[in-house]
Parts: sequence; C-alpha cells; structure tokens
Amino acid sequence: MDKKLQGYIDKLNKLNFKEMYNGDFFLTWEKTDDELEAVFTVAEALRYMRENNISTKVFESGLGISLFRDNSTRTRFSFASACNLLGLEVQDLDETKSQIAHGETVRETANMISFMADVIGIRDDMYIGKGNKYMHEVVDSVTQGNKDGVLEQKPTLVNLQCDIDHPTQCMADMLHIINTFGGVENLKGKKVAMTWAYSPSYGKPLSVPQGVVGLMTRFGMDVVLAHPEGYDIMPEVEEVAKKNAAENGGSFTKTNSMAEAFKDADIVYPKSWAPFAAMEKRTDLYAEGDQAGIDALEKELLAQNAEHKDWCCTEELMSTTKDGKALYLHCLPADINGVSCKDGEVEASVFDRYRDPLYKEASYKPYIIAAMILLAKQKDITGTLEALADKATPRHFGE
Amino acid sequence: MDKKLQGYIDKLNKLNFKEMYNGDFFLTWEKTDDELEAVFTVAEALRYMRENNISTKVFESGLGISLFRDNSTRTRFSFASACNLLGLEVQDLDETKSQIAHGETVRETANMISFMADVIGIRDDMYIGKGNKYMHEVVDSVTQGNKDGVLEQKPTLVNLQCDIDHPTQCMADMLHIINTFGGVENLKGKKVAMTWAYSPSYGKPLSVPQGVVGLMTRFGMDVVLAHPEGYDIMPEVEEVAKKNAAENGGSFTKTNSMAEAFKDADIVYPKSWAPFAAMEKRTDLYAEGDQAGIDALEKELLAQNAEHKDWCCTEELMSTTKDGKALYLHCLPADINGVSCKDGEVEASVFDRYRDPLYKEASYKPYIIAAMILLAKQKDITGTLEALADKATPRHFGE
Amino acid sequence: MDKKLQGYIDKLNKLNFKEMYNGDFFLTWEKTDDELEAVFTVAEALRYMRENNISTKVFESGLGISLFRDNSTRTRFSFASACNLLGLEVQDLDETKSQIAHGETVRETANMISFMADVIGIRDDMYIGKGNKYMHEVVDSVTQGNKDGVLEQKPTLVNLQCDIDHPTQCMADMLHIINTFGGVENLKGKKVAMTWAYSPSYGKPLSVPQGVVGLMTRFGMDVVLAHPEGYDIMPEVEEVAKKNAAENGGSFTKTNSMAEAFKDADIVYPKSWAPFAAMEKRTDLYAEGDQAGIDALEKELLAQNAEHKDWCCTEELMSTTKDGKALYLHCLPADINGVSCKDGEVEASVFDRYRDPLYKEASYKPYIIAAMILLAKQKDITGTLEALADKATPRHFGE
Repeated sequence: MDKKLQGYIDKLNKLNFKEMYNGDFFLTWEKTDDELEAVFTVAEALRYMRENNISTKVFESGLGISLFRDNSTRTRFSFASACNLLGLEVQDLDETKSQIAHGETVRETANMISFMADVIGIRDDMYIGKGNKYMHEVVDSVTQGNKDGVLEQKPTLVNLQCDIDHPTQCMADMLHIINTFGGVENLKGKKVAMTWAYSPSYGKPLSVPQGVVGLMTRFGMDVVLAHPEGYDIMPEVEEVAKKNAAENGGSFTKTNSMAEAFKDADIVYPKSWAPFAAMEKRTDLYAEGDQAGIDALEKELLAQNAEHKDWCCTEELMSTTKDGKALYLHCLPADINGVSCKDGEVEASVFDRYRDPLYKEASYKPYIIAAMILLAKQKDITGTLEALADKATPRHFGE
Repeated sequence: MDKKLQGYIDKLNKLNFKEMYNGDFFLTWEKTDDELEAVFTVAEALRYMRENNISTKVFESGLGISLFRDNSTRTRFSFASACNLLGLEVQDLDETKSQIAHGETVRETANMISFMADVIGIRDDMYIGKGNKYMHEVVDSVTQGNKDGVLEQKPTLVNLQCDIDHPTQCMADMLHIINTFGGVENLKGKKVAMTWAYSPSYGKPLSVPQGVVGLMTRFGMDVVLAHPEGYDIMPEVEEVAKKNAAENGGSFTKTNSMAEAFKDADIVYPKSWAPFAAMEKRTDLYAEGDQAGIDALEKELLAQNAEHKDWCCTEELMSTTKDGKALYLHCLPADINGVSCKDGEVEASVFDRYRDPLYKEASYKPYIIAAMILLAKQKDITGTLEALADKATPRHFGE
Repeated sequence: MDKKLQGYIDKLNKLNFKEMYNGDFFLTWEKTDDELEAVFTVAEALRYMRENNISTKVFESGLGISLFRDNSTRTRFSFASACNLLGLEVQDLDETKSQIAHGETVRETANMISFMADVIGIRDDMYIGKGNKYMHEVVDSVTQGNKDGVLEQKPTLVNLQCDIDHPTQCMADMLHIINTFGGVENLKGKKVAMTWAYSPSYGKPLSVPQGVVGLMTRFGMDVVLAHPEGYDIMPEVEEVAKKNAAENGGSFTKTNSMAEAFKDADIVYPKSWAPFAAMEKRTDLYAEGDQAGIDALEKELLAQNAEHKDWCCTEELMSTTKDGKALYLHCLPADINGVSCKDGEVEASVFDRYRDPLYKEASYKPYIIAAMILLAKQKDITGTLEALADKATPRHFGE
C-alpha cells in the first residue's frame, strides 16, 4: 500500500462517521467534527488516487440526478465530475423539459426519478425559507420510497446550495485553507474576514457568507462578519457561529467596517450578498405573485447597494492584512473592477495575483462532492479505498 | 447458480422469442404471447440481479438515443435508467438544439445519429396517424443503413409512446397486475375496468386506454372499456381487443356508464383521454396550419369535457368494486381532486391509499424497457444472463 | 494479433507523430503529412476494432466537454460517439444554462469546467476572426492551468468547426475519398471541384470550402475552387492551398464557372457559402450591435445569392464529369431541389444516387474525432492498440 494513501486510511480509522452511511448532506453544522474531517480526508484520498491514475469507480451503473433551480456552470460541472469519477451517469432533471411544474407533487417526482438513482444533487438557493425545506421534502420522499420497497436504494442527497448553506463550496474553501496553512493544527487564532462587497447585480444568495461563518468558526479561528448596516444574514446562522466559536476556542464578531475586518486578517472573503430581510420580503412577494412589488424592491435594493461602492477589496485594504498577504478567497465568479463591471467586489490587480490559488480553491469541489457521496454510500469506506488501491485499475489506460 | 435466477432462465428456455433478435418493439399486439412473456421474464431477472448487486452491463460503450416530441419526466428517466443499467449512454436528440426541423429528412437524421447507437427510444404521441408511422420510418431508415454498410449495427427501436400504443407503460402495468395477483394463472375471469375520467386539461393521448385494452384482453380477463358518448378510441384497436378476447377466453365489452364498469371490478384504470375523432380532426387542422380551427376545437372539447365531471374515481365507486378493494392503476401523473386541480380523475383519499402500489407499478418500467432492448440485442439471452450471474461483477462495488 | 490490425500498427510505427502527444487539433495545415496519416490510420484501426467487437475504452472515467456556439445534430452526435467509444462521458457546456455569457472570462470558465476533462470539443464558426481565436484562448487557459497545478491533466482541444477550418469534416471527407479510390497512392492527378452552389439560406460558414482546399491540395490532386464573383474565401487559406499544391505536385486553380470546374472532375463538392468579405462585415456589425446594418446586409446578400440559382449540381453537369461518375461529396445536410427547398445545391436524382456514399462519408467522422483524441492523450498509441487487442474485451458482451 502506498504510504500517502495509507495515511488517509489510518486517519479515517480514527474517526467516527458511521452515522453518515445512508445519510445525506444538508448543512455543515448538522455534522460532527469527525464527520467533516472524514469528508476532507476522503476528498484528499480520491484526489491522490486520481492523480496517480487509480480508478475510483465504485459503480458499474447508476444515475446521479441533478436538479438546478438556478443557472450554474461551476457547480453543474463539479457535480458531473464527482459522479463520473465514481461511475455514476448524470441525468439532469430539467424543469423546462419535465412536468414537475405541472402540478406534480414533490414526493411523486422524487420517487419517479430515483428508481436507479444513487445520488441527487440539488441547487435551490433563490428563495429564503424554501430551498432547504424542498431538499428535506425530497429526502423524506425517497426515504419513504425505499422503506416501502418502491426504491431499491435510497439515493443520498447532496446540497449543492440552498437558502441557508452552501456546504460543497465552503468545504472546498476550507480544504483550500487547510492545505494553504499546512494543516488544521495551524489554524487556531487565525483571523478570517467574511465581508460584504459591492456588486452592481441584485440579490446574490446568502448561502456563502452563512456557510462560511457556520463552518469556519469550528476551527478555533477568529471569524469576523462585516457588512454595511442592513445587510444582515439569517439570525439563526449567527447563533450557530456564536455557539461554534464558544465551543472551539475562537471567536465570532460583527462589524460594519470593512477596514476593521481586514485589519491583520489572515484570510479575507469579500463578496456581495443581499440583505436577509429583503430576501425574505422578496420570497413573500413572489408567493403573492406581486410583480410590481418585486420590481419596487429591486429598485430600492439597487439604490441601497449603490451607496456602498466603497466596499471593495482594494490593494490598499489588502496591504492592511497580516503581512499584506492575507489569503484572498472567492466562490467565483467575482465582480472585478474594470473587468466584469465598472465597480465591483475586488480590484483587478488583487484578483489577478490570487488567480491560481482561487482556481485551486475551486478544484477541491468535485472531490468534496464525491467524498460526500462515498461516505453516504459505502458501508466500509476504508475497505473500499484499500480494495481500489489493490486493484489499481488505471483511470486512463496506457498512460 | 442462484435458484430464483435459474427459474427465470428455465422459463425463458421454454419460450420461443427468437424473432425478437434484431427486431423492434412497436405494439404489443404485434408480439406473440411467448414474446410478451419473455419481456416480463427478462425484466424480472434484471430486477432481481440489480437487487442482488449483480451488474447487468452488457455494453462497454454504445449510445441510447432518446427522441421526445413531448415533455416527459418519467419516461425520460425510465429510458435513461434502462440504458444505464445495460451500459449505454443516453444522448438526447433535442429538436430545439438540432437541425431536424430544418428540412432534414427522417432517413438522413436517423442514420446520422446512429453510427454508434444500439437503441433508439421515441415518444411521439401527439398526432393521430403520425407517431407510429414516424417510428416505422426511423426503423426502415436504420435497417437500410445497416444493410448498406453505413451502420455497423441496427439500433433497436423502443416505442416509448405513440399515437396507437404505449407498450412500455402497459407492460409495466401488466407486470404489476401479475405480481399483485400472484401470477398469470390467477388472472382468468378477473374484471378490468379501463374507464374514462374527467380532467380539466385538454387532449390527453389515447395510447394508454388503447394499449390497455389491446394488452389486457390477452390474459383471459373480462375487460370493460367505459367512456361517455363521443369519447371513442381508435376502432382498429377495439377490433384487436375483441379478437384477443375471443382467442383467450375472456371478454371485451363497452359501456357508457362508469358505475357499470366499476361494479365488481378487480382492477380499475380511470383516466382522461381525448375523443379519437377530435384528435384526428386536430391532426388535420395542424397539417393545414389552421390555428383558429384548433382554438375552436379546443374550446368545443373543453365544453364537452366539462359535462362529464361526474366521471371521477370516488370512494363511493371504489366501494362497489370486488370486496371494495379493486387494484387502482394509473400511468401518473393523475389529476387528483383538490390536489392538482379542483375536479379531476380521482378523489384524494383513493389516490393516497394506492400511492405505494402506484409507485411500484411505475418502478417496473425501466426494467421492461431494458428487457425489450436486451431481447433485441442479445442472440443468446439465457447464455448472457448465465454469464453475467457467473461473473457476478458487483453493480455497486464494496456493498 | 489480427493481420489487419497489425497492418495499422505497422503503418503507425513508420510515422512520426510524437508532437501530437499532449497537443491539440486546430487546422489541418498545422499538421505534418505523417500526423494526418496517423489520424487516418488510428481512425481505421478504431473502426476495425469496433466492427470486430473489441472495446477501445481507454478511460475508466473522465469527461468530454462539448461547447457548441451553433446548433448541430451531426457534429454533436459524432463527438458524443467518439467520446463514448473511448470511455469519456459528454458534458455539454450549454451557454444558455451556464453563466458564460455573464461576464466570465474565458480563462476562468475553461479551468472551471476542466478539472476532470480529457477533451474539449468546440464548434464556433459564426463570426470570422473569432472562432479559431477563441479556441486558442481556451487551450492557452487550460495549458496554463495544468502548468500551475490547477488541472491534473491538460484536456486536448478538438476543433469541431471554426471560422477557418472544419478539420473533422474534411478529414472524414478525405478518408472517404482515400477508401473510394483504393488508397492515397491512387489520388495523384485526380481532379477535385470544390464549388459554390446556390442555397436559399443565408450566411453558411466558409470552413468547409476552406478546409477542403487546405487539405485536398496535399495529395497531389488538381483542386479547383469555383464560385461566382464576390464569393471569395479567406485569402490566407488560398495561400495555404497554393503552397500545398506547389509542394505536393498537384495544382490549385480558381474559376468563376461551375461548368469548367465540373468538366472531367473525379470528385465534386458543390456547396453554398457566404462571401468572406460579407462575413467579415457581419462580424463587425455584430460587434457594434448594429442590427439595422445586419438586416440590410442580409437583404443584400440574399439578393446577390438569388442571382446565382444556376449554380446547382444538375444531372447535366454531373454528366460532364469523368465518365459521368464523379464522386459527389457533401457535409450534409444538403439543400436539395424540390425536397428541402425549391431551388438548392443539388438535383434530387443526383443526391439520391449518392445517398449511400454520402452516409458512409459521414460515418468516418466519429472515428476521426476519436483518433484525434487518442493521438493527443496516449503516449504510446501502438502499445495501447496492441494491449486493447490482447485484452479483447467485447464492446457488446454476449454477441
């Protein structure tokens, strides 16, 4: 057995993640520390095996269903890559092609598409109070379907972004941080600035800032959430962050000053999002079908937004971070000054300097997703990894 | 060899289905009893193998082409599941993405997409006199292409619903009946009510009622077709049903009373459809491009429809069936009173009680489709099943 | 080892194509004669293996990304077939589903979709000066991404049609010619007429005529480019053709007479295209967003077009070719008189007579694409082919 791979297996053997088997992945704060570490470890093992041309195909057949309520290139390709790496074929449930909008209940559709599905990936982040709830409905439906003998297997759900959390993104971000700082053990006391930034566009989801403060407060870091007045995130997620900080020896604080957040920060994550209260209002307006109300709200939010063009990740601000070299993070695509818009979230020279690390950050996502799937589907994951390493079927034959 | 699997193989060895090799599946009444039993048996064998984690992947590569002229979630996923189970990758021929609508002949397109296609699944149920004809054109084209050396293999066609029959649906319904009643031998004398039911929507296809009376009259059952006056199905399919009943010792009768049909029925299949004559007229109007005529027809049909809101599968009607417990069938999605519409095909409490059996009914479809493909593509299907069982490659490795 | 397969391997062993490893395929004239012959030879070997039920799946997992800026059935299915034949799963980058149009840079998107991509196929033929340039941007991006450690592998690019060349089409056309005439050695002195033909539609790409004169001038043939005045192709491609002819002992000439081009021709390729200068103008108008200008240009071009309805491949013209039996080529779909339009590129009786050869011509494309991929991805391609032949895994098990 290869030493590095053995290391991952040894680490897994010390963790308790048996509750993940046959489970689902909704929110990072519903998982134990051991479970999160298992995801990171399996993700690293899968990456290592692929880099060493060892096939990790555990499924000879089976479908990975993707359901996107919002357009997406990155997440779509990450999910497709993860499924493909394990041997699952992606089948999109395209709501324009399907009859889902025509009065079908969630329960029925969830079962009808799952006869041969091993995983369902859902992105549903548009309406506060809806996305996560919808995912639970789907999981409840297929769990019941499996119990009733309708489905031979219960597909595992991977939350590809909901109204509350964006776990595959934040876990990829976090694995990038861990590798950049040389291990979890080096993160205690590091300062993370999750800050709002200006973007000319309207209504970006809250799931990234919420996911970040909900996850990064678990590693003993000092997490600062910064935004202009009125741009609050969901209060229940702030509670999660506070509790995490209290339990893990770091801190969770808030400020209305971007400069204060950046000061001496080791990691910065400047990104636009919409105010929680406004998004809640929008959700209600949609439910009422009040288009005039929606248009008025959009106008109001854009005006409010425009007052905060100074919330930009500039070279000047970057120079105030730890040694002027904080790790800059973004879920991409970023709104870059003079590139994708006139005024945006970040100055072009800052973004350019971090382009490679940003792409590496993104490159973890397919492995994080694949790890979440494997941990839910393999009863004996270390046995599986050992067997795959023994077989050593080349992913690319002849190379 | 596992005993259950051996049982399926023994049964296949007694049947004559050699004409299915290199053939296609258009209409159930074009197949012999042995051929239909072969489809049921292979479907059961495939399901059993999948449930026991034995891979049934016979193709290392190859495409399954899907061509849907109408939106569809269920059939789309059933076809994708069947292809995936056998090792074929689905490639959709999306007419909006393709140039098929721009003056290409069927023959040319059929060949161009089939260079590496092992199966073509088509759903084309919208216009009377068109769908089945189109499928034959496609099959003739690829048969010729194969003969001329253009195509290395002749893809097999699976009719995923045409204007005449819906064989994958009705075969799945039938397998559900067989399993519910404990075998084909228990069906003689059972009463089946294929009845029209009210739905607020317009122009549902005739292929399900036609497919049902064309298939279920072959099992010695008493099949009753019930609908309001004017809602006749295609006369040639009624002839098929009569002939079947005469040959198989059951009966085929018609009535304009839903109550009469339900009385003492063992199986009920209440479902909306459009009158055959009206659909024929619509097809002509479309051909003439007469939109005003189409609109007028729709209005007329909806008014005619509205007179029959009493055609609903109520608890009261259900209580008149055999022991008040007839097996309720539907191809889904159903129009449920107070759920998907105000007045519909079935009362919510009836539908709810049969939800599990309905989902099981649907769960046979991927296996029926896979069986149709295998019977057309494998020269020695029992040899193939034995070899797969011997290899016993796990579908899901490590489970 | 099978003799025929050994023959292909022996031929490959005599060729120098080592520069193709880790490379890309943009334009045929950027490749050496040996490299082109390697593509033909590998394509033939793959076809032979598939015909003999030998799997050529070299990838256990991996994605083939397709990016089509224009609708396409044939090329889409050819690319999907090629990827599937090698074990890669196609993932479409659909610009309507993705965020590519919303200010993302090419570099970022190219990396984000390529974490597990082994090949990227692009069709971008609409705007002169854009398509080929865009492909280079993509390749530069993923090459850099691979160098920077973001991507584990550099996906190879296959040009599925750009503004300059249509290499997969023209290579398929060429392999069809080679096989029809019994080998490259029989082509010297053959006359090829690449001629414009009338079509009622507007703005067909120049890539086919350009690709044809750029490729076919390399085989010692006499290539004639014929078109009405004003329908010139890109001057730089004419230079390529001239140079090729000079180096390979054939000729490249131009004429404004279809009759002159057809006279004694061994091969004719009559096809509509838009004038280069007009396409350049259109590209500028699009860049300026000048819709009125575009409409005016279209009107002007259609009027100009209509003056040349006599440019049609008639029986009369065909009778003037060598023995009245020139090989008729077309990339399909053709505009056929009285079939797909009133007046078009070819008379129906001519087209019908060549239907089978035309379909065979098209059938080479998936193998040409697969060969391009393999030559870029396999370090030791003869070793790979030998190992695949030794393993002899059936493509279709049980046949």
